[in-house]
Amino acid sequence: MLYITKRVHFSASHRLFNPTFNDQKNDEIYDKCNNFYGHGHNYILEVTVRGIPNPQTGYVIDLKKLKRILNDTIVDKVDHKHLNFDVDFLKGVITSVENLAVIFWKILKEEIKEAELYKIKLYETENSYVEYFGEPVEVNRF
Amino acid sequence: MLYITKRVHFSASHRLFNPTFNDQKNDEIYDKCNNFYGHGHNYILEVTVRGIPNPQTGYVIDLKKLKRILNDTIVDKVDHKHLNFDVDFLKGVITSVENLAVIFWKILKEEIKEAELYKIKLYETENSYVEYFGEPVEVNRF
Amino acid sequence: MLYITKRVHFSASHRLFNPTFNDQKNDEIYDKCNNFYGHGHNYILEVTVRGIPNPQTGYVIDLKKLKRILNDTIVDKVDHKHLNFDVDFLKGVITSVENLAVIFWKILKEEIKEAELYKIKLYETENSYVEYFGEPVEVNRF
Amino acid sequence: MLYITKRVHFSASHRLFNPTFNDQKNDEIYDKCNNFYGHGHNYILEVTVRGIPNPQTGYVIDLKKLKRILNDTIVDKVDHKHLNFDVDFLKGVITSVENLAVIFWKILKEEIKEAELYKIKLYETENSYVEYFGEPVEVNRF
Amino acid sequence: MLYITKRVHFSASHRLFNPTFNDQKNDEIYDKCNNFYGHGHNYILEVTVRGIPNPQTGYVIDLKKLKRILNDTIVDKVDHKHLNFDVDFLKGVITSVENLAVIFWKILKEEIKEAELYKIKLYETENSYVEYFGEPVEVNRF
Amino acid sequence: MLYITKRVHFSASHRLFNPTFNDQKNDEIYDKCNNFYGHGHNYILEVTVRGIPNPQTGYVIDLKKLKRILNDTIVDKVDHKHLNFDVDFLKGVITSVENLAVIFWKILKEEIKEAELYKIKLYETENSYVEYFGEPVEVNRF
Repeated sequence: MLYITKRVHFSASHRLFNPTFNDQKNDEIYDKCNNFYGHGHNYILEVTVRGIPNPQTGYVIDLKKLKRILNDTIVDKVDHKHLNFDVDFLKGVITSVENLAVIFWKILKEEIKEAELYKIKLYETENSYVEYFGEPVEVNRF
Repeated sequence: MLYITKRVHFSASHRLFNPTFNDQKNDEIYDKCNNFYGHGHNYILEVTVRGIPNPQTGYVIDLKKLKRILNDTIVDKVDHKHLNFDVDFLKGVITSVENLAVIFWKILKEEIKEAELYKIKLYETENSYVEYFGEPVEVNRF
Repeated sequence: MLYITKRVHFSASHRLFNPTFNDQKNDEIYDKCNNFYGHGHNYILEVTVRGIPNPQTGYVIDLKKLKRILNDTIVDKVDHKHLNFDVDFLKGVITSVENLAVIFWKILKEEIKEAELYKIKLYETENSYVEYFGEPVEVNRF
Repeated sequence: MLYITKRVHFSASHRLFNPTFNDQKNDEIYDKCNNFYGHGHNYILEVTVRGIPNPQTGYVIDLKKLKRILNDTIVDKVDHKHLNFDVDFLKGVITSVENLAVIFWKILKEEIKEAELYKIKLYETENSYVEYFGEPVEVNRF
Repeated sequence: MLYITKRVHFSASHRLFNPTFNDQKNDEIYDKCNNFYGHGHNYILEVTVRGIPNPQTGYVIDLKKLKRILNDTIVDKVDHKHLNFDVDFLKGVITSVENLAVIFWKILKEEIKEAELYKIKLYETENSYVEYFGEPVEVNRF
Repeated sequence: MLYITKRVHFSASHRLFNPTFNDQKNDEIYDKCNNFYGHGHNYILEVTVRGIPNPQTGYVIDLKKLKRILNDTIVDKVDHKHLNFDVDFLKGVITSVENLAVIFWKILKEEIKEAELYKIKLYETENSYVEYFGEPVEVNRF
């Protein structure tokens, strides 16, 4: 097996809060990430697929096609958006980097057919990132 | 003269629009940066001062003090905020990276006494940044 | 004045040699950069323009337009190309990073109208780069 | 077990095409990577070995020796070369990043004796990379 | 399971040598890392924990708390220190990056309760790093 | 004129203190940089020369020669050393990043003949760096 990764970027704003918590609890848990008007990041999304290289092409997957899938199904929907308000597939979701990774996985799992989706790595800042390998995780919608 | 630079980070959201333009004109000019709910970035701010090193200390400026000034007067006010709504000194300002640099300069010019403020470099993304050396520029407030 | 920079990437191959030198002299001067079949780089091109921000828009230049100019006039012509063979405006030029910067300047000077072209910075590797401010330099064609 | 990694760089050009395909098929599959005269990259190669640190030295492997192996057996053969023409061990190979990783693994597996070769990570650009852990993969030679 | 990582920095000096070796053997094994007065690095420490996101918060772990643990138990003890002389928990340890990772693991394993410590990644330079997953390894003290 | 830059690395330790100050004053001024046993950094040194490209070679300077000068006169003397104790040309100097830049300039000014030395940029960390253009500055030796 070989593991091949494509990296894309998007810039978005978000606000962390749970509508079933009161203000004090939201503040305690999310602190400055709970700022009412939101804040934002330059996110970096790395998507890894795995497979055997096709002996005729040397490719596990055509990275141009993978990039197109990432742009069409994720980047174009979230880039220069507010993740809490502007994105259909995030409606009602707490937009933590963990939940984003799980939701992105579900979307990409449907779209990537040429090779097996293996990992999503999502950087919120250069000092904080999450990795997800598709084990079932439930994301609440409020 | 030596030029010494400190680099700090903040994450914020903003929306580009001019309230005196109609929606169509705002869209034409600001495109996806005009998204109603805003979007965001991990900004990087580099501040350069210049001077002669003190022969007794070897320092042009104490970088710990410079860092404290940057944090107290800029980072703590803009980090994890919406630049259009949450920041007193940006009220009514179009939050383009150019205007941010000019406003930050004015604040820092007042605060940095040990050496001469020489340059502000502000990255909106790793592929877009502005540099400003303090020549008089007018920033409108709407 | 504010200085605003856009950064773009391209991947290309090239070979350094002067057709009026014999093989030995080309080897002495260009060493491994003279490899007959060429070698290649992920180039990074940073283009800086300067001007006064428009008080109505907060922009020195529309970075989306600047990016389009960079892509249309430079990146689309050199990306995934051999600089010695595939690029009309480099015909006969020794493809040193210095000469590339001078040629790119001439092209961009014609195209950028909204603000003043100030600097071209071209990275051949992360450890080697050139900066050019447009002072007249002659580039030979052989 | 500890996993320790050394990172080295090389700059090379290559062209993706399969000599058993006609021009149209090569174009369809490899697109701009099929440019006749080639294109190039600043590759980054990360090699990870694993083992128990020697209790007397604190080392899993002497990184200076590992670096010497990487330079002698890989970097010196591919740096500032055209991968399709100049490299004995790549003769007839489609020079996709996947195939390069598999071939590099076979070479390094023979050379690294002090610890167990665990992973090869090869960046073609900062946005595209492959990882390989040595599971048997066949690379065609045409 | 999701894997979430926090990255912190520290600057320290160290010297590699084994007091039970004679000078010649220390030189042979550690070469320039054996310099009597030491040398130094800007270390980067990445700590990965794993778990299921809490469905009410969207968090695997509160990264602010994780960062505080990293700062209190590691960074504040080693930043701007000589690792061989100034750090209680490194007394007598050969300060190889491998041994540092093992010692840091033991400390963090005691402190991180909200989620499972999964990996420590420690960069000595941008070209050399170690990864450790907690398998039992003995570190001698001399 | 074109400005061409080469970037090299070294890892060293140092301690900031002035032997004519008492302990309290050294602590006040240098804080954690005054740690008795020192601390260290992965320094990055960028050296910029300027000139007109030779029309026959396309080179302002042969970067391989420039790199050799940087290695022979700076890197080999400071890499994996304690800057306060191990380096002849730093004897008695307060090893602030400012003073290092001035001393390095004097050495390089003597050695670089093919083009004009224009700038030294020295990073102590990724968040702190100094730039020096050769204006006369006196560095005390204690």
